[in-house]
Amino acid sequence: MLPIFNKMDTDPAMANFKVLYVLTQLCGLTMIVLMGSWVGVHMGGVGGTDNPALEFNWHPLLMTIGLIFLYGNAILVYRGFRTMRKKTLKVTHAALHMGAFILTVIALKTVFDSHNLAKTPIPNMYSLHSWLGLSAVLIFSLQYVIGFTAYLAPGAKESFRAALMPLHVYFGLFGFVLSIASACMGITEKAIFALGSSYSQLPSSAVMVNLCGVLFVVFGGLVVYLATNPAYKRKPIPEDTVLLTGSAE
Amino acid sequence: MLPIFNKMDTDPAMANFKVLYVLTQLCGLTMIVLMGSWVGVHMGGVGGTDNPALEFNWHPLLMTIGLIFLYGNAILVYRGFRTMRKKTLKVTHAALHMGAFILTVIALKTVFDSHNLAKTPIPNMYSLHSWLGLSAVLIFSLQYVIGFTAYLAPGAKESFRAALMPLHVYFGLFGFVLSIASACMGITEKAIFALGSSYSQLPSSAVMVNLCGVLFVVFGGLVVYLATNPAYKRKPIPEDTVLLTGSAE
Repeated sequence: MLPIFNKMDTDPAMANFKVLYVLTQLCGLTMIVLMGSWVGVHMGGVGGTDNPALEFNWHPLLMTIGLIFLYGNAILVYRGFRTMRKKTLKVTHAALHMGAFILTVIALKTVFDSHNLAKTPIPNMYSLHSWLGLSAVLIFSLQYVIGFTAYLAPGAKESFRAALMPLHVYFGLFGFVLSIASACMGITEKAIFALGSSYSQLPSSAVMVNLCGVLFVVFGGLVVYLATNPAYKRKPIPEDTVLLTGSAE
Repeated sequence: MLPIFNKMDTDPAMANFKVLYVLTQLCGLTMIVLMGSWVGVHMGGVGGTDNPALEFNWHPLLMTIGLIFLYGNAILVYRGFRTMRKKTLKVTHAALHMGAFILTVIALKTVFDSHNLAKTPIPNMYSLHSWLGLSAVLIFSLQYVIGFTAYLAPGAKESFRAALMPLHVYFGLFGFVLSIASACMGITEKAIFALGSSYSQLPSSAVMVNLCGVLFVVFGGLVVYLATNPAYKRKPIPEDTVLLTGSAE
Protein backbone atom coordinates (compact mmCIF):
# COMPACT_ATOMS: atom_id res chain seq x y z
CA MET A 1 0.00 0.00 0.00
CA LEU A 2 1.30 3.45 -0.89
CA PRO A 3 2.35 5.55 2.14
CA ILE A 4 -0.25 8.14 1.24
CA PHE A 5 -3.05 5.66 1.89
CA ASN A 6 -1.78 4.54 5.31
CA LYS A 7 -3.52 5.57 8.52
CA MET A 8 -5.00 8.61 6.86
CA ASP A 9 -8.39 6.95 6.40
CA THR A 10 -9.25 7.26 10.07
CA ASP A 11 -8.69 11.04 10.18
CA PRO A 12 -11.88 12.94 9.29
CA ALA A 13 -9.92 16.17 8.64
CA MET A 14 -8.17 14.32 5.81
CA ALA A 15 -11.43 13.34 4.11
CA ASN A 16 -10.86 15.42 0.98
CA PHE A 17 -7.08 15.31 0.91
CA LYS A 18 -6.75 12.01 -0.94
CA VAL A 19 -9.23 13.00 -3.64
CA LEU A 20 -7.56 16.38 -4.20
CA TYR A 21 -4.08 14.85 -4.12
CA VAL A 22 -4.97 12.29 -6.80
CA LEU A 23 -6.66 15.04 -8.84
CA THR A 24 -3.49 17.14 -8.56
CA GLN A 25 -1.35 14.28 -9.88
CA LEU A 26 -3.77 13.56 -12.76
CA CYS A 27 -3.77 17.24 -13.61
CA GLY A 28 0.03 17.33 -13.48
CA LEU A 29 0.46 14.26 -15.67
CA THR A 30 -2.12 15.53 -18.16
CA MET A 31 -0.34 18.87 -18.54
CA ILE A 32 2.96 17.06 -19.24
CA VAL A 33 1.33 14.79 -21.84
CA LEU A 34 -0.43 17.77 -23.39
CA MET A 35 2.77 19.82 -23.57
CA GLY A 36 4.62 16.81 -24.99
CA SER A 37 1.91 16.30 -27.60
CA TRP A 38 1.92 19.98 -28.54
CA VAL A 39 5.70 19.91 -28.99
CA GLY A 40 5.60 16.58 -30.83
CA VAL A 41 2.52 17.06 -33.00
CA HIS A 42 2.44 20.79 -33.70
CA MET A 43 5.96 22.12 -33.11
CA GLY A 44 7.97 19.50 -34.98
CA GLY A 45 9.40 17.64 -32.00
CA VAL A 46 12.75 18.28 -30.34
CA GLY A 47 16.32 18.52 -31.64
CA GLY A 48 19.94 19.21 -30.71
CA THR A 49 22.23 22.19 -31.14
CA ASP A 50 22.39 21.60 -34.92
CA ASN A 51 18.73 22.60 -35.15
CA PRO A 52 18.16 25.57 -32.81
CA ALA A 53 14.44 25.87 -33.64
CA LEU A 54 13.81 22.30 -32.53
CA GLU A 55 16.27 22.57 -29.64
CA PHE A 56 14.02 25.35 -28.31
CA ASN A 57 11.18 22.87 -27.94
CA TRP A 58 12.96 21.20 -25.01
CA HIS A 59 12.43 24.48 -23.11
CA PRO A 60 8.65 24.34 -22.54
CA LEU A 61 8.69 20.55 -22.11
CA LEU A 62 11.48 20.42 -19.50
CA MET A 63 10.16 23.48 -17.66
CA THR A 64 6.71 21.84 -17.44
CA ILE A 65 8.24 18.67 -15.97
CA GLY A 66 10.86 20.40 -13.79
CA LEU A 67 9.85 23.85 -12.66
CA ILE A 68 6.12 23.03 -12.45
CA PHE A 69 5.44 19.30 -11.90
CA LEU A 70 8.50 18.34 -9.82
CA TYR A 71 8.55 21.69 -7.99
CA GLY A 72 4.87 21.21 -7.06
CA ASN A 73 5.42 17.62 -5.95
CA ALA A 74 8.47 18.58 -3.90
CA ILE A 75 6.24 21.08 -2.07
CA LEU A 76 3.57 18.43 -1.45
CA VAL A 77 5.88 15.67 -0.23
CA TYR A 78 5.38 16.36 3.51
CA ARG A 79 1.60 16.18 3.22
CA GLY A 80 1.34 13.44 0.58
CA PHE A 81 3.68 11.02 2.38
CA ARG A 82 2.93 12.07 5.92
CA THR A 83 3.56 8.67 7.53
CA MET A 84 7.21 8.60 6.45
CA ARG A 85 9.77 9.86 8.94
CA LYS A 86 10.79 13.52 8.79
CA LYS A 87 14.38 12.86 7.69
CA THR A 88 13.26 10.78 4.69
CA LEU A 89 10.76 13.47 3.72
CA LYS A 90 13.42 16.18 3.91
CA VAL A 91 15.75 14.20 1.65
CA THR A 92 12.91 13.47 -0.80
CA HIS A 93 11.92 17.18 -0.76
CA ALA A 94 15.54 18.15 -1.58
CA ALA A 95 15.92 15.38 -4.19
CA LEU A 96 12.76 16.35 -6.09
CA HIS A 97 13.87 19.99 -6.01
CA MET A 98 17.30 18.92 -7.32
CA GLY A 99 15.56 17.07 -10.16
CA ALA A 100 13.56 20.22 -10.90
CA PHE A 101 16.75 22.30 -10.80
CA ILE A 102 18.65 20.04 -13.25
CA LEU A 103 15.78 20.03 -15.77
CA THR A 104 15.48 23.82 -15.37
CA VAL A 105 19.17 24.36 -16.12
CA ILE A 106 18.91 22.21 -19.28
CA ALA A 107 15.70 24.05 -20.23
CA LEU A 108 17.50 27.39 -19.85
CA LYS A 109 20.47 26.17 -21.92
CA THR A 110 18.17 25.07 -24.77
CA VAL A 111 16.42 28.44 -24.95
CA PHE A 112 19.68 30.44 -24.92
CA ASP A 113 21.10 28.04 -27.55
CA SER A 114 18.01 28.46 -29.71
CA HIS A 115 18.54 32.23 -29.64
CA ASN A 116 22.34 32.33 -29.95
CA LEU A 117 22.76 29.53 -32.53
CA ALA A 118 19.96 30.70 -34.85
CA LYS A 119 21.15 31.83 -38.31
CA THR A 120 20.00 35.33 -37.35
CA PRO A 121 20.68 35.33 -33.61
CA ILE A 122 17.74 36.39 -31.44
CA PRO A 123 18.41 38.74 -28.50
CA ASN A 124 18.08 37.19 -25.05
CA MET A 125 16.22 38.35 -21.94
CA TYR A 126 14.06 41.05 -23.43
CA SER A 127 10.54 39.79 -22.74
CA LEU A 128 8.55 39.98 -19.51
CA HIS A 129 8.45 36.16 -19.67
CA SER A 130 12.25 36.03 -19.53
CA TRP A 131 12.51 38.62 -16.75
CA LEU A 132 9.93 36.95 -14.50
CA GLY A 133 10.92 33.40 -15.48
CA LEU A 134 14.57 33.99 -14.60
CA SER A 135 13.45 35.68 -11.36
CA ALA A 136 11.50 32.51 -10.53
CA VAL A 137 14.59 30.37 -11.22
CA LEU A 138 16.78 32.65 -9.06
CA ILE A 139 14.27 32.57 -6.17
CA PHE A 140 14.07 28.78 -6.54
CA SER A 141 17.87 28.44 -6.50
CA LEU A 142 18.36 30.75 -3.52
CA GLN A 143 15.65 28.86 -1.66
CA TYR A 144 17.51 25.61 -2.37
CA VAL A 145 20.83 26.89 -1.02
CA ILE A 146 19.26 28.49 2.06
CA GLY A 147 16.91 25.55 2.68
CA PHE A 148 19.73 23.02 2.34
CA THR A 149 22.00 24.99 4.69
CA ALA A 150 19.31 25.54 7.29
CA TYR A 151 17.44 22.24 7.27
CA LEU A 152 19.61 19.46 5.81
CA ALA A 153 23.18 20.43 6.67
CA PRO A 154 23.89 19.86 10.38
CA GLY A 155 24.57 22.75 12.68
CA ALA A 156 21.65 25.15 12.36
CA LYS A 157 19.93 25.88 15.67
CA GLU A 158 16.38 24.58 16.06
CA SER A 159 15.19 28.10 16.95
CA PHE A 160 16.75 29.47 13.73
CA ARG A 161 15.11 26.71 11.68
CA ALA A 162 11.72 27.46 13.20
CA ALA A 163 12.10 31.21 12.68
CA LEU A 164 13.09 30.72 9.04
CA MET A 165 10.28 28.28 8.23
CA PRO A 166 7.49 30.81 7.42
CA LEU A 167 9.80 32.59 4.95
CA HIS A 168 10.94 29.25 3.48
CA VAL A 169 7.30 28.31 2.90
CA TYR A 170 6.33 31.75 1.58
CA PHE A 171 9.18 32.08 -0.91
CA GLY A 172 8.83 28.44 -1.93
CA LEU A 173 5.20 29.03 -2.90
CA PHE A 174 6.01 32.46 -4.37
CA GLY A 175 8.65 30.93 -6.69
CA PHE A 176 6.25 28.13 -7.65
CA VAL A 177 3.39 30.50 -8.50
CA LEU A 178 5.78 32.82 -10.36
CA SER A 179 7.01 29.82 -12.38
CA ILE A 180 3.45 29.04 -13.42
CA ALA A 181 2.70 32.66 -14.29
CA SER A 182 5.93 32.82 -16.32
CA ALA A 183 5.03 29.59 -18.10
CA CYS A 184 1.68 31.11 -19.10
CA MET A 185 3.52 34.16 -20.47
CA GLY A 186 5.85 31.81 -22.34
CA ILE A 187 2.86 29.99 -23.87
CA THR A 188 1.40 33.36 -24.88
CA GLU A 189 4.66 34.39 -26.58
CA LYS A 190 5.22 31.09 -28.35
CA ALA A 191 1.62 30.79 -29.54
CA ILE A 192 1.84 34.27 -31.10
CA PHE A 193 5.30 33.66 -32.63
CA ALA A 194 4.42 30.21 -33.99
CA LEU A 195 0.84 30.81 -35.12
CA GLY A 196 0.88 34.50 -36.01
CA SER A 197 -2.51 35.86 -36.93
CA SER A 198 -4.00 32.35 -37.20
CA TYR A 199 -3.84 32.16 -33.35
CA SER A 200 -7.09 34.12 -33.33
CA GLN A 201 -8.80 31.38 -35.37
CA LEU A 202 -8.10 28.95 -32.51
CA PRO A 203 -6.66 26.05 -34.54
CA SER A 204 -6.18 22.77 -32.61
CA SER A 205 -2.58 23.77 -31.82
CA ALA A 206 -3.83 26.94 -30.10
CA VAL A 207 -6.56 25.13 -28.16
CA MET A 208 -4.03 22.53 -27.05
CA VAL A 209 -1.48 24.99 -25.72
CA ASN A 210 -4.15 27.24 -24.14
CA LEU A 211 -5.53 24.19 -22.32
CA CYS A 212 -2.02 23.44 -21.17
CA GLY A 213 -1.89 26.92 -19.60
CA VAL A 214 -5.26 26.32 -17.92
CA LEU A 215 -3.94 23.03 -16.50
CA PHE A 216 -0.84 24.82 -15.17
CA VAL A 217 -3.13 27.15 -13.24
CA VAL A 218 -5.39 24.37 -11.93
CA PHE A 219 -2.35 22.29 -10.91
CA GLY A 220 -0.83 25.33 -9.18
CA GLY A 221 -4.09 26.18 -7.43
CA LEU A 222 -4.42 22.63 -6.12
CA VAL A 223 -0.80 22.42 -4.93
CA VAL A 224 -1.05 25.74 -3.06
CA TYR A 225 -4.40 24.72 -1.52
CA LEU A 226 -3.09 21.33 -0.36
CA ALA A 227 0.13 22.90 0.95
CA THR A 228 -1.49 25.73 2.90
CA ASN A 229 -4.70 24.23 4.33
CA PRO A 230 -3.93 23.83 8.06
CA ALA A 231 -6.23 20.77 8.24
CA TYR A 232 -3.84 18.89 5.93
CA LYS A 233 -0.68 19.66 7.88
CA ARG A 234 1.48 16.64 8.71
CA LYS A 235 1.63 15.85 12.42
CA PRO A 236 4.91 14.66 13.97
CA ILE A 237 5.21 10.86 14.31
CA PRO A 238 7.12 8.96 17.03
CA GLU A 239 9.98 8.13 14.63
CA ASP A 240 10.67 11.87 14.22
CA THR A 241 11.40 12.20 17.93
CA VAL A 242 13.70 9.18 17.93
CA LEU A 243 15.61 10.93 15.16
CA LEU A 244 15.84 14.22 17.04
CA THR A 245 17.48 12.60 20.08
CA GLY A 246 20.06 11.14 17.72
CA SER A 247 19.68 7.64 19.21
CA ALA A 248 18.64 6.14 15.86
CA GLU A 249 19.07 7.12 12.24
CA MET B 1 -3.52 60.25 12.71
CA LEU B 2 -4.39 57.56 10.19
CA PRO B 3 -6.14 54.49 11.66
CA ILE B 4 -3.25 52.31 10.51
CA PHE B 5 -0.87 54.13 12.84
CA ASN B 6 -3.05 53.80 15.96
CA LYS B 7 -2.15 51.40 18.80
CA MET B 8 -0.13 49.27 16.40
CA ASP B 9 3.16 50.75 17.59
CA THR B 10 3.02 48.92 20.88
CA ASP B 11 2.67 45.46 19.27
CA PRO B 12 6.10 43.97 18.54
CA ALA B 13 4.58 41.40 16.14
CA MET B 14 3.54 44.33 13.96
CA ALA B 15 7.03 45.75 13.73
CA ASN B 16 7.41 45.18 9.98
CA PHE B 17 3.79 45.53 9.00
CA LYS B 18 3.77 49.30 8.63
CA VAL B 19 6.91 49.38 6.49
CA LEU B 20 5.62 46.62 4.20
CA TYR B 21 2.15 48.17 4.00
CA VAL B 22 3.55 51.56 2.93
CA LEU B 23 5.87 49.79 0.46
CA THR B 24 2.86 47.95 -0.98
CA GLN B 25 0.98 51.21 -1.52
CA LEU B 26 4.00 52.91 -3.11
CA CYS B 27 4.43 49.90 -5.37
CA GLY B 28 0.73 49.97 -6.28
CA LEU B 29 0.70 53.70 -7.04
CA THR B 30 3.91 53.43 -9.07
CA MET B 31 2.48 50.63 -11.22
CA ILE B 32 -0.62 52.74 -11.96
CA VAL B 33 1.49 55.79 -12.86
CA LEU B 34 3.77 53.60 -15.00
CA MET B 35 0.84 51.98 -16.83
CA GLY B 36 -0.77 55.39 -17.31
CA SER B 37 2.49 56.80 -18.67
CA TRP B 38 2.93 53.82 -21.02
CA VAL B 39 -0.59 54.29 -22.36
CA GLY B 40 -0.20 58.06 -22.58
CA VAL B 41 3.36 58.34 -23.88
CA HIS B 42 3.80 55.22 -26.00
CA MET B 43 0.34 53.96 -26.93
CA GLY B 44 -1.25 57.25 -28.03
CA GLY B 45 -3.52 57.80 -25.03
CA VAL B 46 -7.14 56.72 -24.69
CA GLY B 47 -10.22 57.25 -26.84
CA GLY B 48 -13.91 56.46 -27.26
CA THR B 49 -15.84 54.03 -29.44
CA ASP B 50 -15.06 56.12 -32.54
CA ASN B 51 -11.40 55.10 -32.21
CA PRO B 52 -11.30 51.40 -31.24
CA ALA B 53 -7.48 51.26 -31.13
CA LEU B 54 -7.36 54.02 -28.52
CA GLU B 55 -10.46 52.73 -26.75
CA PHE B 56 -8.48 49.52 -26.14
CA ASN B 57 -5.97 51.48 -24.05
CA TRP B 58 -8.55 51.90 -21.29
CA HIS B 59 -8.36 48.12 -20.82
CA PRO B 60 -4.86 47.79 -19.29
CA LEU B 61 -5.22 51.07 -17.36
CA LEU B 62 -8.59 50.28 -15.75
CA MET B 63 -7.62 46.67 -15.05
CA THR B 64 -4.45 47.87 -13.29
CA ILE B 65 -6.47 50.24 -11.10
CA GLY B 66 -9.46 47.93 -10.57
CA LEU B 67 -8.59 44.26 -10.75
CA ILE B 68 -5.10 44.71 -9.26
CA PHE B 69 -4.78 47.84 -7.09
CA LEU B 70 -8.32 48.05 -5.65
CA TYR B 71 -8.66 44.26 -5.44
CA GLY B 72 -5.38 44.10 -3.47
CA ASN B 73 -6.40 46.95 -1.19
CA ALA B 74 -9.81 45.41 -0.55
CA ILE B 75 -7.99 42.27 0.59
CA LEU B 76 -5.72 44.27 2.91
CA VAL B 77 -8.43 46.41 4.51
CA TYR B 78 -8.85 44.23 7.62
CA ARG B 79 -5.15 44.30 8.41
CA GLY B 80 -4.36 47.85 7.30
CA PHE B 81 -7.21 49.46 9.26
CA ARG B 82 -7.35 47.03 12.16
CA THR B 83 -8.56 49.50 14.76
CA MET B 84 -11.80 50.19 12.91
CA ARG B 85 -14.84 48.18 13.94
CA LYS B 86 -15.59 44.98 12.04
CA LYS B 87 -18.81 46.21 10.42
CA THR B 88 -17.07 49.28 8.94
CA LEU B 89 -14.26 47.08 7.64
CA LYS B 90 -16.72 44.68 5.99
CA VAL B 91 -18.50 47.53 4.22
CA THR B 92 -15.17 49.05 3.11
CA HIS B 93 -14.02 45.61 1.87
CA ALA B 94 -17.25 45.25 -0.16
CA ALA B 95 -17.09 48.86 -1.41
CA LEU B 96 -13.51 48.57 -2.67
CA HIS B 97 -14.41 45.29 -4.38
CA MET B 98 -17.42 47.00 -5.96
CA GLY B 99 -15.11 49.73 -7.26
CA ALA B 100 -12.82 47.07 -8.67
CA PHE B 101 -15.81 45.31 -10.26
CA ILE B 102 -17.14 48.46 -11.95
CA LEU B 103 -13.72 49.35 -13.42
CA THR B 104 -13.34 45.73 -14.55
CA VAL B 105 -16.66 45.74 -16.38
CA ILE B 106 -15.72 48.97 -18.20
CA ALA B 107 -12.27 47.50 -18.95
CA LEU B 108 -13.93 44.42 -20.45
CA LYS B 109 -16.30 46.52 -22.53
CA THR B 110 -13.42 48.55 -23.99
CA VAL B 111 -11.49 45.48 -25.08
CA PHE B 112 -14.54 43.82 -26.70
CA ASP B 113 -15.36 47.16 -28.39
CA SER B 114 -11.80 47.50 -29.66
CA HIS B 115 -12.11 44.05 -31.28
CA ASN B 116 -15.68 44.31 -32.57
CA LEU B 117 -15.59 47.94 -33.79
CA ALA B 118 -12.22 47.65 -35.58
CA LYS B 119 -12.39 48.12 -39.37
CA THR B 120 -11.37 44.47 -39.69
CA PRO B 121 -12.99 42.98 -36.57
CA ILE B 122 -10.64 40.96 -34.35
CA PRO B 123 -11.93 37.65 -32.92
CA ASN B 124 -12.60 37.64 -29.17
CA MET B 125 -11.54 35.22 -26.45
CA TYR B 126 -8.90 33.23 -28.30
CA SER B 127 -5.76 33.91 -26.25
CA LEU B 128 -4.67 32.30 -22.99
CA HIS B 129 -4.76 35.84 -21.55
CA SER B 130 -8.46 36.11 -22.36
CA TRP B 131 -9.27 32.63 -21.05
CA LEU B 132 -7.47 33.09 -17.73
CA GLY B 133 -8.36 36.76 -17.41
CA LEU B 134 -12.07 36.08 -17.80
CA SER B 135 -11.75 33.17 -15.35
CA ALA B 136 -10.26 35.61 -12.84
CA VAL B 137 -13.18 38.00 -13.37
CA LEU B 138 -15.70 35.17 -12.96
CA ILE B 139 -14.05 33.93 -9.76
CA PHE B 140 -13.97 37.52 -8.48
CA SER B 141 -17.66 38.03 -9.28
CA LEU B 142 -18.78 34.73 -7.74
CA GLN B 143 -16.76 35.55 -4.65
CA TYR B 144 -18.53 38.88 -4.43
CA VAL B 145 -22.00 37.37 -4.63
CA ILE B 146 -21.21 34.57 -2.18
CA GLY B 147 -19.28 36.85 0.19
CA PHE B 148 -22.04 39.45 0.20
CA THR B 149 -24.72 36.83 0.86
CA ALA B 150 -22.79 35.13 3.61
CA TYR B 151 -21.14 38.03 5.43
CA LEU B 152 -23.00 41.28 4.73
CA ALA B 153 -26.63 40.27 4.17
CA PRO B 154 -28.27 39.31 7.45
CA GLY B 155 -29.38 35.76 8.13
CA ALA B 156 -26.36 33.54 7.61
CA LYS B 157 -25.50 31.42 10.65
CA GLU B 158 -22.24 32.23 12.43
CA SER B 159 -21.13 28.60 12.05
CA PHE B 160 -21.73 28.76 8.28
CA ARG B 161 -19.79 32.02 8.04
CA ALA B 162 -16.87 30.52 9.95
CA ALA B 163 -16.87 27.34 7.85
CA LEU B 164 -16.93 29.32 4.60
CA MET B 165 -14.13 31.72 5.63
CA PRO B 166 -11.10 29.59 4.61
CA LEU B 167 -12.60 29.11 1.12
CA HIS B 168 -13.51 32.82 0.90
CA VAL B 169 -9.89 33.70 1.71
CA TYR B 170 -8.43 31.04 -0.61
CA PHE B 171 -10.51 31.92 -3.66
CA GLY B 172 -10.11 35.64 -2.96
CA LEU B 173 -6.34 35.29 -3.11
CA PHE B 174 -6.55 32.82 -6.03
CA GLY B 175 -8.57 35.29 -8.10
CA PHE B 176 -6.18 38.10 -7.18
CA VAL B 177 -3.06 36.14 -8.15
CA LEU B 178 -4.76 34.92 -11.34
CA SER B 179 -5.60 38.55 -12.20
CA ILE B 180 -1.94 39.48 -11.89
CA ALA B 181 -0.77 36.49 -13.94
CA SER B 182 -3.36 37.36 -16.60
CA ALA B 183 -2.21 40.99 -16.61
CA CYS B 184 1.36 39.83 -17.24
CA MET B 185 0.10 37.70 -20.15
CA GLY B 186 -1.79 40.74 -21.43
CA ILE B 187 1.38 42.85 -21.27
CA THR B 188 3.26 40.12 -23.16
CA GLU B 189 0.60 40.06 -25.90
CA LYS B 190 0.33 43.82 -26.26
CA ALA B 191 4.11 44.36 -26.24
CA ILE B 192 4.48 41.85 -29.09
CA PHE B 193 1.50 43.22 -31.07
CA ALA B 194 2.51 46.87 -30.61
CA LEU B 195 6.28 46.59 -30.93
CA GLY B 196 6.68 43.59 -33.24
CA SER B 197 10.28 42.53 -33.72
CA SER B 198 11.58 45.75 -32.14
CA TYR B 199 10.43 44.39 -28.73
CA SER B 200 13.66 42.40 -28.67
CA GLN B 201 15.69 45.64 -28.91
CA LEU B 202 14.12 46.72 -25.59
CA PRO B 203 13.09 50.28 -26.55
CA SER B 204 11.94 52.49 -23.66
CA SER B 205 8.34 51.45 -24.29
CA ALA B 206 9.27 47.79 -23.74
CA VAL B 207 11.31 48.49 -20.60
CA MET B 208 8.43 50.55 -19.23
CA VAL B 209 5.77 47.90 -19.74
CA ASN B 210 8.05 45.07 -18.57
CA LEU B 211 8.75 47.03 -15.38
CA CYS B 212 5.02 47.44 -14.97
CA GLY B 213 4.69 43.63 -15.05
CA VAL B 214 7.46 43.30 -12.47
CA LEU B 215 5.65 45.80 -10.23
CA PHE B 216 2.41 43.80 -10.59
CA VAL B 217 4.26 40.75 -9.25
CA VAL B 218 5.94 42.64 -6.39
CA PHE B 219 2.62 44.28 -5.43
CA GLY B 220 0.89 40.88 -5.55
CA GLY B 221 3.63 39.21 -3.53
CA LEU B 222 3.42 41.89 -0.85
CA VAL B 223 -0.39 41.80 -0.66
CA VAL B 224 -0.45 38.00 -0.30
CA TYR B 225 2.32 38.11 2.32
CA LEU B 226 0.57 40.80 4.38
CA ALA B 227 -2.78 39.02 4.07
CA THR B 228 -1.56 35.54 5.03
CA ASN B 229 1.09 36.16 7.72
CA PRO B 230 -0.64 35.03 10.95
CA ALA B 231 1.34 37.61 12.96
CA TYR B 232 -0.44 40.41 11.08
CA LYS B 233 -3.96 39.07 11.65
CA ARG B 234 -6.41 41.62 13.07
CA LYS B 235 -7.55 40.82 16.60
CA PRO B 236 -11.17 41.47 17.60
CA ILE B 237 -11.73 44.79 19.39
CA PRO B 238 -14.38 45.53 22.07
CA GLU B 239 -16.57 47.44 19.59
CA ASP B 240 -16.94 44.24 17.50
CA THR B 241 -18.57 42.44 20.44
CA VAL B 242 -20.98 45.27 21.08
CA LEU B 243 -22.00 44.92 17.46
CA LEU B 244 -22.54 41.18 17.71
CA THR B 245 -24.97 41.46 20.59
CA GLY B 246 -26.99 43.90 18.53
CA SER B 247 -27.23 46.42 21.39
CA ALA B 248 -25.44 49.11 19.38
CA GLU B 249 -24.80 49.78 15.72
